[in-house]
Amino acid sequence: MRLVKNPAEMQQEATSLKLQGKTIGFVPTMGYLHKGHLALVQKAREECNIVVVSIFVNPTQFSPGEDFERYPRDLRRDQALLLESGVDYLFYPEAAAIYPSNYKTFAEVKTLQDKLCGAFRPGHFKGVCTIVLKLFNLVMPNRAYFGIKDAQQLRIIEKMVEDFNLNIIIVPVPTVREADGLAMSSRNIYLTPQERQAAPLIYQGLLAAKTIIEQGERRAAVIQELIMQKLQNSPLLKPQYLSIVSYETLEDLEYLQGKVLIALAAFLGKTRLIDNLIVEI
Amino acid sequence: MRLVKNPAEMQQEATSLKLQGKTIGFVPTMGYLHKGHLALVQKAREECNIVVVSIFVNPTQFSPGEDFERYPRDLRRDQALLLESGVDYLFYPEAAAIYPSNYKTFAEVKTLQDKLCGAFRPGHFKGVCTIVLKLFNLVMPNRAYFGIKDAQQLRIIEKMVEDFNLNIIIVPVPTVREADGLAMSSRNIYLTPQERQAAPLIYQGLLAAKTIIEQGERRAAVIQELIMQKLQNSPLLKPQYLSIVSYETLEDLEYLQGKVLIALAAFLGKTRLIDNLIVEI
Repeated sequence: MRLVKNPAEMQQEATSLKLQGKTIGFVPTMGYLHKGHLALVQKAREECNIVVVSIFVNPTQFSPGEDFERYPRDLRRDQALLLESGVDYLFYPEAAAIYPSNYKTFAEVKTLQDKLCGAFRPGHFKGVCTIVLKLFNLVMPNRAYFGIKDAQQLRIIEKMVEDFNLNIIIVPVPTVREADGLAMSSRNIYLTPQERQAAPLIYQGLLAAKTIIEQGERRAAVIQELIMQKLQNSPLLKPQYLSIVSYETLEDLEYLQGKVLIALAAFLGKTRLIDNLIVEI
Repeated sequence: MRLVKNPAEMQQEATSLKLQGKTIGFVPTMGYLHKGHLALVQKAREECNIVVVSIFVNPTQFSPGEDFERYPRDLRRDQALLLESGVDYLFYPEAAAIYPSNYKTFAEVKTLQDKLCGAFRPGHFKGVCTIVLKLFNLVMPNRAYFGIKDAQQLRIIEKMVEDFNLNIIIVPVPTVREADGLAMSSRNIYLTPQERQAAPLIYQGLLAAKTIIEQGERRAAVIQELIMQKLQNSPLLKPQYLSIVSYETLEDLEYLQGKVLIALAAFLGKTRLIDNLIVEI
């Protein structure tokens, strides 16, 4: 596995690989890797000649007061995991090389960026779009891999790729979960033992929703009510939002139809967790 | 010369040319071509294996009330000129293929976009950045050619390329002028004979500025005063702005230093013309 820190060097490598006719699979991450990330890597390994993983904790997608400073980092551990997984390049640029002091240029996906998490994290998805676009330009992937766990992020990246005519296939990869259903996340490490015990209620709520949808329920209000009941089983769980929306537009639905995203964010203490369920009606 | 209307076809052609190791030179235009455009084409022809010219009157860079509808168009004439100039591909997509009805994604260069023309044309440079980025992704150029006549546009595109890590060299090409000094522009066709007669005062003002700068003048206020005096030689000429700025930051200068842009916009009747002078101190 080759370690690349310099953005210009990464782009030169990518250019040369593309001229050799190699396909590049790209997994952008913020590090502190877990099995969810490794599932993205494995998919990339199956589908592409070369696998590039980036680790970059992107300052522009954190709002003031969020956890940018304390976001968990462990490059040595990540490096070992990626080596084991057969990754070809680990790209880990420094913030000053990605955002020099006179940095001024941003990408954004209007409307979609203001829904769901975007309503509570102003500027977050503009930061995500900007860093992902920059990484795409440096790594030059044929395919890029994103977890369905961050469903709004996935949808926004898909839309940016479509609207900007980027010649990249975005590959969604299913959420990887702990044995008790908690979605894997680098932020799970923040949870106290009590919070960790309450956390699986989120997935249990989504599973209960899935069951009644399979039984024919289509009323969003009824499904929301059911999920909220599950979440209320622990006083530690404080839902921030719970929305049932069209996957394509992220607009609220009254009745489920087409590709539906049921998405929520909830606090356990200071830790904010997200999860979702996608159903096709 | 190959005519390509379909964006996906243009991208496939470009991908295949790049895999063959060809270098692509790209000249994005809004058509109604003049010698200024042909100078861009000639430079591209000298430096690249393949020359692609696009013609697209980009709706998102016109404000309401500007001349989008009446902007001059003559594809047949443009086609003949490009054929003569040895262009390989003419890419002329339709607006609906570039901006489908649910289009949502934009690029922008903060600060630089609000200066000079940007102060009077809100949203203009966001529209320019967005279309240029999309065209870059479709045409995949190694080098792209922009006229110095649109100096703010050139600076903003240079900055976008730098900030977004686009692997493209931006080549600035000097302004081509009529015999009497008027900068070539597709909009010159709007001028009445009287307006056309007054128009060279713009360049005369810039030349007078150049002379006193060469003689050692460094005070921006003095240089501005001299240019304004020249413009006042015709009552038809109504200056919109006249700014002396750092080329890099587009910030106003009190004293000339480094790479300096002297830029102005002026109305002749309903027609808005721009011109500029760049000096290195």
